[in-house]
Amino acid sequence: MNITEQAAMALAVQLLGQRNVLKDHAITQARVLVEAELKGHPSHGLQRLPRVLKRIERGLIDPRTEGEGRWRSGVILDVDGQSGLGPVVAMAALRRLDERIGASGMALAAIRNNNHLGMLAYYVEQIAAGGRIGIAMSSSEALVHPYGGTRAMLGTNPIAIAVPTTGRPLVLDLATSTVSMGKIHYHAANGRPIPPGWARDADGLPTTDAARATKGAIAPFGGAKGYGLGIAIELLVAALAGSALAPDIRGTLDDQSICNKGDVLIAIDALAAPDLAGRLADYLDAVRASPAADPDHPVSVPGDGADRRRQASLSRGFDVEPQLWDELNALSLSASSVH
Amino acid sequence: MNITEQAAMALAVQLLGQRNVLKDHAITQARVLVEAELKGHPSHGLQRLPRVLKRIERGLIDPRTEGEGRWRSGVILDVDGQSGLGPVVAMAALRRLDERIGASGMALAAIRNNNHLGMLAYYVEQIAAGGRIGIAMSSSEALVHPYGGTRAMLGTNPIAIAVPTTGRPLVLDLATSTVSMGKIHYHAANGRPIPPGWARDADGLPTTDAARATKGAIAPFGGAKGYGLGIAIELLVAALAGSALAPDIRGTLDDQSICNKGDVLIAIDALAAPDLAGRLADYLDAVRASPAADPDHPVSVPGDGADRRRQASLSRGFDVEPQLWDELNALSLSASSVH
Repeated sequence: MNITEQAAMALAVQLLGQRNVLKDHAITQARVLVEAELKGHPSHGLQRLPRVLKRIERGLIDPRTEGEGRWRSGVILDVDGQSGLGPVVAMAALRRLDERIGASGMALAAIRNNNHLGMLAYYVEQIAAGGRIGIAMSSSEALVHPYGGTRAMLGTNPIAIAVPTTGRPLVLDLATSTVSMGKIHYHAANGRPIPPGWARDADGLPTTDAARATKGAIAPFGGAKGYGLGIAIELLVAALAGSALAPDIRGTLDDQSICNKGDVLIAIDALAAPDLAGRLADYLDAVRASPAADPDHPVSVPGDGADRRRQASLSRGFDVEPQLWDELNALSLSASSVH
Repeated sequence: MNITEQAAMALAVQLLGQRNVLKDHAITQARVLVEAELKGHPSHGLQRLPRVLKRIERGLIDPRTEGEGRWRSGVILDVDGQSGLGPVVAMAALRRLDERIGASGMALAAIRNNNHLGMLAYYVEQIAAGGRIGIAMSSSEALVHPYGGTRAMLGTNPIAIAVPTTGRPLVLDLATSTVSMGKIHYHAANGRPIPPGWARDADGLPTTDAARATKGAIAPFGGAKGYGLGIAIELLVAALAGSALAPDIRGTLDDQSICNKGDVLIAIDALAAPDLAGRLADYLDAVRASPAADPDHPVSVPGDGADRRRQASLSRGFDVEPQLWDELNALSLSASSVH
């Protein structure tokens, strides 16, 4: 069914508010989920909200904290997320980076004990909106097998990068797996096979059976190079945040465990040369205008598709599975049961 | 023919010294090239030395400068490479980062007007040897087409990451192209076809003819994701260093033009938690020990192969094409012609 941004925000904020989340924090958490819907990434959208609510109810998310940051050196902020809402802790950390970056030109937040951030693009977009380069990385449960391996040993280890220009910023947001586990679950739920090369089953054998793949491991993207990037992010995040490594990570996909993955957020001042941001925009336009292999599919730049879908969703609404919308409405607590 | 590390270093240092390069600088430039040979990457090894020498002779490389660094903010060092030798300028920049990083925990060098660095792994290994996380990125001539595009618009835009552990550091070093242009030239020189998917010709059509591919464009690695990473690096480097964008870059592959690409070097203190570096080493060992798809090819971690080849090369020497070795020896100037 077609849902408007306003309706989605209102329901999400209400459900969070009913569970002792401060209004501002509820808006932050809801915004991250609704932005994913607007951009056409429902795997990171409202379908994650029931789990967030359940985690609050079970005490796995502290609905009142913003986490606690401490500068462990001049430009590195150590953040204990105190099991807060992922986006609330991350946005509080970004605000703290402003204390130092004006003078330093660069600052980094290393976050442990935090819940799932949602799409990383959101955070680097906030940094780019302030005129700075943003880089974000997270670790996750072991879902990805090494290149040449068969067992899930790495997280999906996403990285997002935004670079401001005088036009739209470049916004990259990618998991280092070939696909998301969410997409494989989606195929399984619909009884569809998955393409060869996406995944292996619990025995380590290649499979096109989506249901078997959900118990196995996803392939890294881009062969040895994508695997290399993924394992580098795995180590970077753990080395900076002191968070767990993939085989020991829990809590981003379940409603049973404290979340012990890590997040790293970096903001960097670009060079303030007079025409630089304009040259970057011109370059991106030249890439977009360069010849396409298929004339029906012009070349695009990371962030273009999400931006196009977002504009359309803002004016025309977006699709939500009716069962999910019903489920969310059913999670609304009656006034008497609200804290 | 089989060449020892000592013989290669001696010849390279001699050839550079004959062209007015200071002894220490000659050792630095030679070391970067010889390390690539030791690690089994001859495309970044001695075959690049004749071009370096010719660029010095033509005034495209200033053999005496280390470049000039200026802190443009607390932890960002602006480096004008002054057309110095790439590795000499980069290593001088890394030493300057030490001025600030002790207190700040993180520092970045943005380098313009510098010559080719050689393999980026070398620099992040130096940073990791000091116990820090190292990240390096460079831009290059337009050689890579966008995902869904046909014309070379991006550089090969390599990234290297090293993370220290109590064991061997993880050392990732990858170009964001499917292959290097050097490899395509190698196929062309040997009259061999290239696999489908590697490249397009000057007309933008897919080709397996290596000679035609050298005039065309290489595919990005890993489809849309690898393209996204490559274009993000393209913008990051230009935004930080103020260097040119790929279509305007010259001077890393020719002996005709001043080099106007950019380099970014970042050093970051890892968290000083008591057992962290040991946990990272244990994790990498667990990945290596995880089941392999092919029992004859155990799972490895980025840097393992290069390290294994390096150890073998140090004890048994490495192969150099006899023509290249002859060419290098012929470039030795008689005593009377030395400056």
